[in-house]
Amino acid sequence: MRSCILSIGSELLEGSVVDTNSAFIGSSLSHYGTAPDMIRMVKDNKEEIISLFQSLSKEFDVILTTGGLGPTFDDITAECLACACGVDVTLNEKAYKHMKERLERAGVLLNKEHEHQSMLPCGCNLYYNEKGTALGFSMHLNKADIICMPGVPVEMKTMFLNEVLPVLKEKFSLKEITYKDLHFLSIPESYIDTAIRNLQISSDTECIINAGSGKVIVKLRGHNHQEIDGISKVLVSAFKENYLGDNIADEAKLIVDLLNEKKQTVSFAESCTGGLLSEYITNISGASAVFMGSVVSYDNSVKQNVLNVPKDILKEYGAVSAECASFMANGVKDLMKTDYSVSVTGIAGPFGATDTKPVGLVYIGTACKNGTSVYKNIFNGDRQQIRMRSAKKAMFHLLNMIKGKQNGNI
Amino acid sequence: MRSCILSIGSELLEGSVVDTNSAFIGSSLSHYGTAPDMIRMVKDNKEEIISLFQSLSKEFDVILTTGGLGPTFDDITAECLACACGVDVTLNEKAYKHMKERLERAGVLLNKEHEHQSMLPCGCNLYYNEKGTALGFSMHLNKADIICMPGVPVEMKTMFLNEVLPVLKEKFSLKEITYKDLHFLSIPESYIDTAIRNLQISSDTECIINAGSGKVIVKLRGHNHQEIDGISKVLVSAFKENYLGDNIADEAKLIVDLLNEKKQTVSFAESCTGGLLSEYITNISGASAVFMGSVVSYDNSVKQNVLNVPKDILKEYGAVSAECASFMANGVKDLMKTDYSVSVTGIAGPFGATDTKPVGLVYIGTACKNGTSVYKNIFNGDRQQIRMRSAKKAMFHLLNMIKGKQNGNI
Repeated sequence: MRSCILSIGSELLEGSVVDTNSAFIGSSLSHYGTAPDMIRMVKDNKEEIISLFQSLSKEFDVILTTGGLGPTFDDITAECLACACGVDVTLNEKAYKHMKERLERAGVLLNKEHEHQSMLPCGCNLYYNEKGTALGFSMHLNKADIICMPGVPVEMKTMFLNEVLPVLKEKFSLKEITYKDLHFLSIPESYIDTAIRNLQISSDTECIINAGSGKVIVKLRGHNHQEIDGISKVLVSAFKENYLGDNIADEAKLIVDLLNEKKQTVSFAESCTGGLLSEYITNISGASAVFMGSVVSYDNSVKQNVLNVPKDILKEYGAVSAECASFMANGVKDLMKTDYSVSVTGIAGPFGATDTKPVGLVYIGTACKNGTSVYKNIFNGDRQQIRMRSAKKAMFHLLNMIKGKQNGNI
Repeated sequence: MRSCILSIGSELLEGSVVDTNSAFIGSSLSHYGTAPDMIRMVKDNKEEIISLFQSLSKEFDVILTTGGLGPTFDDITAECLACACGVDVTLNEKAYKHMKERLERAGVLLNKEHEHQSMLPCGCNLYYNEKGTALGFSMHLNKADIICMPGVPVEMKTMFLNEVLPVLKEKFSLKEITYKDLHFLSIPESYIDTAIRNLQISSDTECIINAGSGKVIVKLRGHNHQEIDGISKVLVSAFKENYLGDNIADEAKLIVDLLNEKKQTVSFAESCTGGLLSEYITNISGASAVFMGSVVSYDNSVKQNVLNVPKDILKEYGAVSAECASFMANGVKDLMKTDYSVSVTGIAGPFGATDTKPVGLVYIGTACKNGTSVYKNIFNGDRQQIRMRSAKKAMFHLLNMIKGKQNGNI
């Protein structure tokens, strides 16, 4: 199946919205070994969209569009598709009824502009929108099915997974492939690259190295299950200190699931990460059973008065110190009466560095009934990267502690 | 200047990385009234990249690429550009020296693969990379300058702003345009659309409506400063209850700046937002002077024991109640001794709803020396959207409180 994605909307080219939809579709299709061959963003420009529909439909089997289905004047996807297919748009009763019900439930009065949203190409197929007011629709042109979905990510995702993907699976006999992502932390990608070159992987297996978000991910895809397993074993054993796990969509989910299983609880004391670590965990549905809470102790007075870090410690060693991290972890564990706790204190920059404490210096403390550990890190990057890397590393240590692999040293 | 962006990397089509670089470039160029005409993602495929360089260079004045400059086998941008231009790649001494210095400073041993990164097209121009090891480079082909930048966002951004943009400004005499974004909160985009249609804006002024992230943003761009000002005044006065401000890159920055100016402090008590509100604020450099900290009180025991929410209140009204929000705000304000405080408690879903308390019900409390206010909200969306909308709305109320516009009611 040769497919392409058209992300429609001037705001995408103007850069005021980041296109996360394409990545979602790309990732979903990749699990069937059929990543899109092209992703392209296009302005709200009638001539350009119509001409793309006409030319791309000769080249691809499937064209997936997102965006331009709303009620406003710049939403022109339906009109363009109708024009490319040489049909008219008419008020689609089913689409109008769906929109009307949704809007009335939310207390929005329908006006004339709303009709515009339900003017769809004659003879189009409809796709249900569980999360929003605009139904999806498709037409066949030349060799392609052109399938139009909304631009709002949650609406698009639900529609794609529930309505569009099953149709594509059926029509193109798509089968899931072996799809393995090996996650490594704190290692240069060039080390892993060298190891992979030495393995001489066959051309049947696709191997991509991807660095970012504080991790290096080795992506293995293909039908040769045995080869993928073999590569995986070699890499994991070569870099076992840095190995986090495979196919981890989310370390936070791993932590929540593991704690739920063990019926244990955790709390955090955050300084430089400022709530990011808590945010990662509470983003997971089910976190409420295991995450009691956290103290974001940005100011030293909060470290002292709420977390009981002794004044002398702050004075002698400073807030960014192994000693402070240790007290913070124990302070929040006692305060929130949890089985585990993690603390993070560091210098995210761009200001606050001293001669002995550079930007990027971050102490991570972990505490549980077996004792306290503190890990010293020096992270590269800007403020946001240092915060993110700190939170990711904290989750790594928390995971190891829960698994009983705590081995900290100051 | 007709420009296009090529984002290079199979991981982009595979959807494992979201392309934020294009949005950054698009946004930067838009301030000069010259948004890119096309953004396209392309796999690490030699033939395809070479053929795109050859065809697009006949159509565009500038081709900006990101990605594929690293040391690994799938980094092929330089090779493809050389091939498209009919020149060889050679070891670029300047690029190699830069990389060597960077890597040695980070304690990475250079290996043979690293040389690959410095094999650049003969005769290319170089662009300095302040944040990473790979220099950028450009060649002229047909009518286009093809400028290649790294894919790592922080490296690309710095290079684009400091090195590439000045060259483009000079060569194409780019001038900044009037660029105004009006931010509105909690209003259907169709209401604003109707108002805009009635204004009959001239074709000289571009007007885009963009909904998402809990806000509706009206984007006005053009050279007619007077018209843009006029439109702006009408919309702000028509929807003043929902108006947040204009050209707000970040509400959190507005809050931090305002508090810094007033030398006042703030603290948060978060439940359903789970650290997100704190994260928004601490993402701003300079927050440490005004943000004391927060308590993420995910479990009721933390609300009770750390924030002093009376047991009876939790029992009678529940954690998701105006009463609890009010106690949470005052509890954290007293604990952290701040001028202002904000609390958030609600049901982010997908579970936890009751007959009287639906998913999306969120109470936001604000407290200062003038008293306490609580705002009841029912947000649409999934778990992540509800959390994000809650945090954004909390910042809106905090801003109003700091400006002295607090007018809460339960």
